[in-house]
Amino acid sequence: MTMTKRIITNLLRLIALGATVAAIVVMVTSHQSAEVFNLTFTAKFSNEPVFKYFVVAEAIACGYTLVVLILSSRSLLWRLIVILDAVMTAVLTSSISAALAIARVGKKGNSHAGWLPICGQVPKFCDHVTGALVCGFVAAIVYALLLVFSLYSALGPVFGVKP
Amino acid sequence: MTMTKRIITNLLRLIALGATVAAIVVMVTSHQSAEVFNLTFTAKFSNEPVFKYFVVAEAIACGYTLVVLILSSRSLLWRLIVILDAVMTAVLTSSISAALAIARVGKKGNSHAGWLPICGQVPKFCDHVTGALVCGFVAAIVYALLLVFSLYSALGPVFGVKP
Repeated sequence: MTMTKRIITNLLRLIALGATVAAIVVMVTSHQSAEVFNLTFTAKFSNEPVFKYFVVAEAIACGYTLVVLILSSRSLLWRLIVILDAVMTAVLTSSISAALAIARVGKKGNSHAGWLPICGQVPKFCDHVTGALVCGFVAAIVYALLLVFSLYSALGPVFGVKP
Repeated sequence: MTMTKRIITNLLRLIALGATVAAIVVMVTSHQSAEVFNLTFTAKFSNEPVFKYFVVAEAIACGYTLVVLILSSRSLLWRLIVILDAVMTAVLTSSISAALAIARVGKKGNSHAGWLPICGQVPKFCDHVTGALVCGFVAAIVYALLLVFSLYSALGPVFGVKP
């Protein structure tokens, strides 16, 4: 692995680490109480299983990124790392997609199913969730880049006869 | 590429092709009207943007699988195919996760947000969606296997020093 490649990879992993930590912190601190028809209700991420899954997925990616950053000097496991990068890309993509789907219902509702939007009542909660989703999206994109980068350097140019 | 490997890969792609076609057909034919409080409402997949995204994602994977099956005898593009397999795995994972998140709300609702489950009113619609999700899940798993298989045969054994 050349020096430039290692610097780019580690930089991408640092961005992913920051993005996953930010996603976890912003999602976990999302919490707002509102009064609707004299009934107080509290919106928090732990009320929605998909947001819990999002936090768990970001935490797994965060821990993995940290371990790989620490181990980066040893290249014995590089093939395992390419495969685990693919797994992390899938995990992050899955969690951001599920969370986005629910956040969309929270924002716009679904009149056909009778699900009303809740962002009008708990705007701060929605802002937090939006922030967390943006961070999660950055993490997923960075991991996709890392994977393409790893695949490219492992396989060589995209076009060519198989050796 | 050895003969055994080609047979396994093509078999996996055929399963993925069947699963995506089944997912599209079962999802598109989901349609049920119900009467609640003297109001007739119709549940169909096109009322929920996430289910539309699911169908589009499955269609893309289906078309791609077909093209790769036809081109399989030529191996000039094999590196591109490894990368596109990774992209398809991500697309399928994303669509199944988003659809599952919404289907869960349809099945169980979310009492904190005031979203009521709808499966009691439209059980046939829910059965169709469940069937489509199972097919989509099979397709995603098969693509994940294809990717790990391609990575393994492209990179060699998981443990080893980088060449």
